[in-house]
Amino acid sequence: MSNCLVAQSGGPTAVINATVAGIVKANQLDSYYDKVYGGLNGIEGILQERFVDLTDMSAMENDILRQTPASALGSCRYKLKRENVADFEKLFSILEKYDIETMFYTGGNDSMDTVAALSQYAREHNIEGHRFVGCPKTVDNDLMHTDHCPGFGSAAKFISTVALHTWLDYNVYTRQEVFILETMGRDAGWLAASACLSGIVDLVILPEVAFEKEIFLAEVKRCIEEKNKCYIVVSEGCKYADGTYVAAGEAKNDGFNHAILGGAGNALKNIILESGTAERCKVQDLSTAQRCFASGQSLTDVTESFQLGMSAHMRSTDKEFTGKMVGLRRKDQEVYDVEYFAVDADKVANFVKAFPSEWVLPNYRGISEDAYRYLRPLIVGSPVVIYEDGVPAYVRPYYMR
Amino acid sequence: MSNCLVAQSGGPTAVINATVAGIVKANQLDSYYDKVYGGLNGIEGILQERFVDLTDMSAMENDILRQTPASALGSCRYKLKRENVADFEKLFSILEKYDIETMFYTGGNDSMDTVAALSQYAREHNIEGHRFVGCPKTVDNDLMHTDHCPGFGSAAKFISTVALHTWLDYNVYTRQEVFILETMGRDAGWLAASACLSGIVDLVILPEVAFEKEIFLAEVKRCIEEKNKCYIVVSEGCKYADGTYVAAGEAKNDGFNHAILGGAGNALKNIILESGTAERCKVQDLSTAQRCFASGQSLTDVTESFQLGMSAHMRSTDKEFTGKMVGLRRKDQEVYDVEYFAVDADKVANFVKAFPSEWVLPNYRGISEDAYRYLRPLIVGSPVVIYEDGVPAYVRPYYMR
Repeated sequence: MSNCLVAQSGGPTAVINATVAGIVKANQLDSYYDKVYGGLNGIEGILQERFVDLTDMSAMENDILRQTPASALGSCRYKLKRENVADFEKLFSILEKYDIETMFYTGGNDSMDTVAALSQYAREHNIEGHRFVGCPKTVDNDLMHTDHCPGFGSAAKFISTVALHTWLDYNVYTRQEVFILETMGRDAGWLAASACLSGIVDLVILPEVAFEKEIFLAEVKRCIEEKNKCYIVVSEGCKYADGTYVAAGEAKNDGFNHAILGGAGNALKNIILESGTAERCKVQDLSTAQRCFASGQSLTDVTESFQLGMSAHMRSTDKEFTGKMVGLRRKDQEVYDVEYFAVDADKVANFVKAFPSEWVLPNYRGISEDAYRYLRPLIVGSPVVIYEDGVPAYVRPYYMR
Repeated sequence: MSNCLVAQSGGPTAVINATVAGIVKANQLDSYYDKVYGGLNGIEGILQERFVDLTDMSAMENDILRQTPASALGSCRYKLKRENVADFEKLFSILEKYDIETMFYTGGNDSMDTVAALSQYAREHNIEGHRFVGCPKTVDNDLMHTDHCPGFGSAAKFISTVALHTWLDYNVYTRQEVFILETMGRDAGWLAASACLSGIVDLVILPEVAFEKEIFLAEVKRCIEEKNKCYIVVSEGCKYADGTYVAAGEAKNDGFNHAILGGAGNALKNIILESGTAERCKVQDLSTAQRCFASGQSLTDVTESFQLGMSAHMRSTDKEFTGKMVGLRRKDQEVYDVEYFAVDADKVANFVKAFPSEWVLPNYRGISEDAYRYLRPLIVGSPVVIYEDGVPAYVRPYYMR
């Protein structure tokens, strides 16, 4: 008799719960584990033994969990540090106590570092019988080795949809107008680039391409002269050539030593207005909504997130399968499809996959055909939504029960 | 032989085009008018004779027009002033030239003033053979006499959806957090109040209820003590008892002598942080997206907008029907339904229908059951969406063709 544990970490996405639903469903199909525990608030809650039993989740709850945004198990930003041996000892004693054979951890590269650290610790201390498996999720799409990350497709769909709708909106008046859409993306421009799927973006400013004020203003001027309008998308993490954030005035710091950004849109607005290049400029910062807006889940994204959870569960029955992340590999064929594979978590941890700068057109004029070929399939399809009393049904977060 | 003309004014909505689609469809059903012209960019474009012919729009284009957000005919903020006689003379000569018997104008209370002014001018100058009919649209929901305004339901649906999703998001961490959602609503709190449909709002700050800092901070403190969290919705136009906008520092002015607001969310954030009531506060300003996000159209809303256009067309065949707005009247019965009726446009023009302050609970603690009964039916249902290449199909704006 043995059990498994699944927990979530890092920022929420619109489809992160689908991975949990996939793990639970896979276990219902072969019952390899006696119990599937959900650990609340990631490592933080696991260290406090805050568990829920997800083993016998009903089919209806599983379906509703798939469409519920944000982390239904709660999340944390608590980082398991290798030098903090007491945390490791406590965690392993809890795994023993609850007879947990496999721990699944969904998250970004910090979470993959946790997976790598835990399996390394077990190996170095000759602790047997516990395996650690990472499931990628991040709207930022910046994990190495996996073709893309669950969560990104739905965020990309929301961003490109808002881009198209706000473009339709800002065009209705004949007056001169610049519109700036600011997206998340600390170190990678995937989210900002995805706005180009709307087909209406004039200029796209990503962290991967140094921001040069003169070129930027010349491009804004060109658009204004051509059509009295200019639609700009900017990533919160865009930088000057010397590495300074364009939004530098607003930068702060989170517990992981990452800058908390915001204000790149307003910084660009000020640059435009102060230079006199345009008279009117509106900024829309998509903020939190872009990572958790679930009414527009991409069917491709939510399906892959669910299947990735199933795949992780099925692979985890191999006693040697530890310290791994399950990723997505795009098949080399005309029609889009993916296969699931495993990669060592330490090859993912603490790296960032940048948006290829060769996919950005000169002078910020959008993205290349290769980029479109990569992005397009990820936003395709809309799942059938389950409603209750006329509004979409969501599970009540487990950490609130 | 005679024709009609339809034009759009004011800020776009997610369903404003459905009214145009309804007028076109009604004319295809009985061909009362020989041609249905679309006037581009409202009065501004009509004075420049910028017309398109919508008469023979295909059924497919009509369906796609219904789901297209923003004003497909373009809009304007140009106000027809009664003292500017030259504009009136020019406009009537253009109506003569194109043999336009009826002009439909969709918009808010400024547009209803235009409808009233044009019919008044015709009456005073004994000009016969032209009628002017207003169709309400405004996300603000602040027009008198009509039960509600087309456009509001879809915006309310988007706002309440984002509220629910961001609430699920901000709860995933155990840390203390205040979340402030800022909505539009210059003089009326309908949009901010609609966020309460999500069922998760702790405090709602509307223009109709004077903002008192001490009460507000005491309420935030109560929420933080209870659950370490506080979810606040604020209308951009919220005011102190003396009429000063809470966002006063950011106020400007548009051409209609309306204050352009913004920053109420950040103003509240500053009040909270400076008082030390909470340590962490995030603001999401929904900005432009809330009025044009069409992926979540309310079926009730888009259907009513379309039918209102049809009703306006059908009523307009009455030679006495001028200076009127077609509105929605809620039937006095258990199951929600509306009927269409006409009201003099000058009774609507330049008035504002406030959110009833008796529908706001004491100490900003949400809205009453009466308010929920009013709001709930307006966001119900999702239309079947027509896709092209995996993304929703929209008509290319007529002013771009």
